[in-house]
Amino acid sequence: NKPFVLIAGPCAIENEDLTLRIASGLKDITTRLGCELVFKASYDKANRTAVTSFRGLGMDHGLRILARVKREFELPILSDIHDISQIDAAAEVLDVLQIPAFLCRQTDLLVAAGKTGKPINIKKGQFLAPWDMEHGVNKVVSTGNRQILLTERGATFGYNNLVSDMRALVIMRQLGYPVIFDATHSVQLPGGAGGSSGGQRQFVGALSRAAVATGIDGLFWEVHENPDQALCDGANSLPLAQVETMLKQMLAIDDVVKDSLTQGDK
Amino acid sequence: NKPFVLIAGPCAIENEDLTLRIASGLKDITTRLGCELVFKASYDKANRTAVTSFRGLGMDHGLRILARVKREFELPILSDIHDISQIDAAAEVLDVLQIPAFLCRQTDLLVAAGKTGKPINIKKGQFLAPWDMEHGVNKVVSTGNRQILLTERGATFGYNNLVSDMRALVIMRQLGYPVIFDATHSVQLPGGAGGSSGGQRQFVGALSRAAVATGIDGLFWEVHENPDQALCDGANSLPLAQVETMLKQMLAIDDVVKDSLTQGDK
Amino acid sequence: NKPFVLIAGPCAIENEDLTLRIASGLKDITTRLGCELVFKASYDKANRTAVTSFRGLGMDHGLRILARVKREFELPILSDIHDISQIDAAAEVLDVLQIPAFLCRQTDLLVAAGKTGKPINIKKGQFLAPWDMEHGVNKVVSTGNRQILLTERGATFGYNNLVSDMRALVIMRQLGYPVIFDATHSVQLPGGAGGSSGGQRQFVGALSRAAVATGIDGLFWEVHENPDQALCDGANSLPLAQVETMLKQMLAIDDVVKDSLTQGDK
Amino acid sequence: NKPFVLIAGPCAIENEDLTLRIASGLKDITTRLGCELVFKASYDKANRTAVTSFRGLGMDHGLRILARVKREFELPILSDIHDISQIDAAAEVLDVLQIPAFLCRQTDLLVAAGKTGKPINIKKGQFLAPWDMEHGVNKVVSTGNRQILLTERGATFGYNNLVSDMRALVIMRQLGYPVIFDATHSVQLPGGAGGSSGGQRQFVGALSRAAVATGIDGLFWEVHENPDQALCDGANSLPLAQVETMLKQMLAIDDVVKDSLTQGDK
Repeated sequence: NKPFVLIAGPCAIENEDLTLRIASGLKDITTRLGCELVFKASYDKANRTAVTSFRGLGMDHGLRILARVKREFELPILSDIHDISQIDAAAEVLDVLQIPAFLCRQTDLLVAAGKTGKPINIKKGQFLAPWDMEHGVNKVVSTGNRQILLTERGATFGYNNLVSDMRALVIMRQLGYPVIFDATHSVQLPGGAGGSSGGQRQFVGALSRAAVATGIDGLFWEVHENPDQALCDGANSLPLAQVETMLKQMLAIDDVVKDSLTQGDK
Repeated sequence: NKPFVLIAGPCAIENEDLTLRIASGLKDITTRLGCELVFKASYDKANRTAVTSFRGLGMDHGLRILARVKREFELPILSDIHDISQIDAAAEVLDVLQIPAFLCRQTDLLVAAGKTGKPINIKKGQFLAPWDMEHGVNKVVSTGNRQILLTERGATFGYNNLVSDMRALVIMRQLGYPVIFDATHSVQLPGGAGGSSGGQRQFVGALSRAAVATGIDGLFWEVHENPDQALCDGANSLPLAQVETMLKQMLAIDDVVKDSLTQGDK
Repeated sequence: NKPFVLIAGPCAIENEDLTLRIASGLKDITTRLGCELVFKASYDKANRTAVTSFRGLGMDHGLRILARVKREFELPILSDIHDISQIDAAAEVLDVLQIPAFLCRQTDLLVAAGKTGKPINIKKGQFLAPWDMEHGVNKVVSTGNRQILLTERGATFGYNNLVSDMRALVIMRQLGYPVIFDATHSVQLPGGAGGSSGGQRQFVGALSRAAVATGIDGLFWEVHENPDQALCDGANSLPLAQVETMLKQMLAIDDVVKDSLTQGDK
Repeated sequence: NKPFVLIAGPCAIENEDLTLRIASGLKDITTRLGCELVFKASYDKANRTAVTSFRGLGMDHGLRILARVKREFELPILSDIHDISQIDAAAEVLDVLQIPAFLCRQTDLLVAAGKTGKPINIKKGQFLAPWDMEHGVNKVVSTGNRQILLTERGATFGYNNLVSDMRALVIMRQLGYPVIFDATHSVQLPGGAGGSSGGQRQFVGALSRAAVATGIDGLFWEVHENPDQALCDGANSLPLAQVETMLKQMLAIDDVVKDSLTQGDK
């Protein structure tokens, strides 16, 4: 019965001004619509397709910008961690530590993240069955930390394609933790654009609506002022200008679903 | 902008009384909720997993019962056709001829069905990409018949499992024909129960809501008074007693989605 | 311990001369290499992607040509049957009746084919788990006919792609019937070339070698004098001129494998 | 034209004696059969399914044992690296640094490994198309290191299952680097045994033969004296007692294939 949450922001921190403008825009929208916002941006893109891809501004610079977003807009901040050595510095700024999907089985990373006591958002690996998220949960819980979010971001479906199995949302919710649907990564075509991942932005709306209709706790959207010029994941990012209309629709569906969900049919 | 349609009924015509009771129940519910109903039941289950499975009462007996449902409840009737030799007799009773998913590429069957001038519901093969339904459509259109429905019923996902790719609904809708989501077959586990197909009835609600939220024209549900004793597809059939509550929720989601669907985000 | 069999011929009977020349070429090669040959050609392509695709010369004309191949080259003949109404005429000419993959669950077709007493080659549906071929086998066996061949031709792997799971060959062989690997259909990209199926002829050799190395009973190759001009399945057909070199390699691998296969490691 | 290589050893270093006995046994067999051996064992299993799984003896202890195997049996040693901080210590002992499949897109790890100048074995992620291994290769090549091996270990195929796409071996070989088939991990059923991954040891032989028949550079087998009591990956490990018979067969197939592979059919 907690309020619906939107985790949103640019894929990468391209520069301070853009990051602040996106945060400001998202804060205004979610305040108007009465929805929780967690600001998301990566300070380091450690697993880009190609070695020549934009990686971000580096951890120190990136965290400083995120700290400013947090302070100025009073927003909780979420970002990825890729390496145990980053966790202490990251945990000083971040409110939610996110485990990237490819790393969702790396026991040491999950345990080290769990030990910070911060909420941990575990992304489900593209190679993982939803019921097997239980094991990732247990790795965090072994540290005494039970503040866990589980995020679906697509399952491997042949080559260079992902499919969003909506059953996975129901199954993961039965593990007892909030479930988020990452709609913008779910429409990626991994490696599908030569040296980078392609994307199908045109399906973000339909898949988000579908996921919300199953009954979830929040959505994850990568948002950019001008996705076609984004340095990372532009093909699947949403334009900031579309967020309000789309989010309004999501909240309306969430209302219908949360009102009517009966015991026997979750 | 046509009203939402529910295609529903028992998997197979087990006997006349049961068939009439299910039709009566569904008619009452859809009348109360202001939703269109097409009654569905198979007079012959030609592709059951095992040779010993229940097949139905045979075409002649089955069609007589369907004709009675049609007459008594003033309902349009939909059923599968598996063989060109059945089409003439079937078309005298049926209002919609359905092409089974396994047969969706059988040119002669599609053409012969198209020539009846009746609406044709083509089920998407579990092995087919959604954009390839265009070719099935063209086979029917080649007869001059443009009354076509397209139905999603799950895509092959490894062995003994199907996944519902919600993008498929959007893609098929762009072909210009009404799109139906067959939720009860989409939760089948093909061959997954030894000599018959298993099913995951617990996901029918969530997948139906998800599909409706993408923006579709109708749902397809197999319904039985007592699914656990159904002679066919019981594991994935809905109990008649749950239909009203669930359908109400579907219509509420449909209202939200159809109200708010903007040009740019279908 | 039966000799290795090659089932080969053109996808469709384009005309009599071409069909005879391919049969003659294949007969020469297999005689030289000491391998059994079953001549394969379809008299009707009932499930082409598009309604405008070439379908063949029709059943009567096609069967006359196949009968001539049989008589002149003393070759057993295999062809697809798509409809119960074709079976009697087909069984007069054909030595092996083949059930197309999409139709492998159509009980009536399997039973009617089984009743002819002819050997039945069941192609495994692209949507079927290998262990579920047991049910298709049982449908034929229910007629008293135990002359059955099982053919692998790829499993659905995302959209517009098939994968050859080599475990399937081992699993089907444990059902107790000879197993054939259809290498040329296994490299199809279903629907992947717009209005027809694309193909990856470049993998036919590697996949055939792989399949033979698992320990199977034969290969199925579509062969054409000039695949790039074939009216059907050219993209995945082998040029007749390459058959001898490739087949020699297959037989050499078969020798190694059949010599060394021990009880415990089939 | 280099000799065929076997990369083999226990999944994890359970203790020194067992590790030495397996190394000794494998050395004897490969010496007799005239095949190259690279000894493989993991000093740390960083991505086990469950937090309670056996992880190994730790890096320092593990590397000491591997150093002893290297010295006593004059064998090159391969092991996984999971973290940049391990690389320096590992590179002092290891002859080949292996990038685990889940980590095959972690740019920093690939670059740091590449900088050691040691040969790098990149395992293909279960979520990756074979052609996308090019990007991982480029990450290593960006360091000036071109000593790269590419290893196939199965592609995600639905839930809790992997499929070995033999086309992937051909495609990766076209990148210009030696290709290894990891048969024992390819038969894993990820997460398929509750809190650990299951395995299908019975398919290791058939899949290995199939892979060798496509034309590859080597095989990767996990080997244990008593797989059923192994502390890691027992379900898919080979018994040491079967290695000689199986390897002999592989080398015989490799001979046939390498002899006969023509230009046009690799």
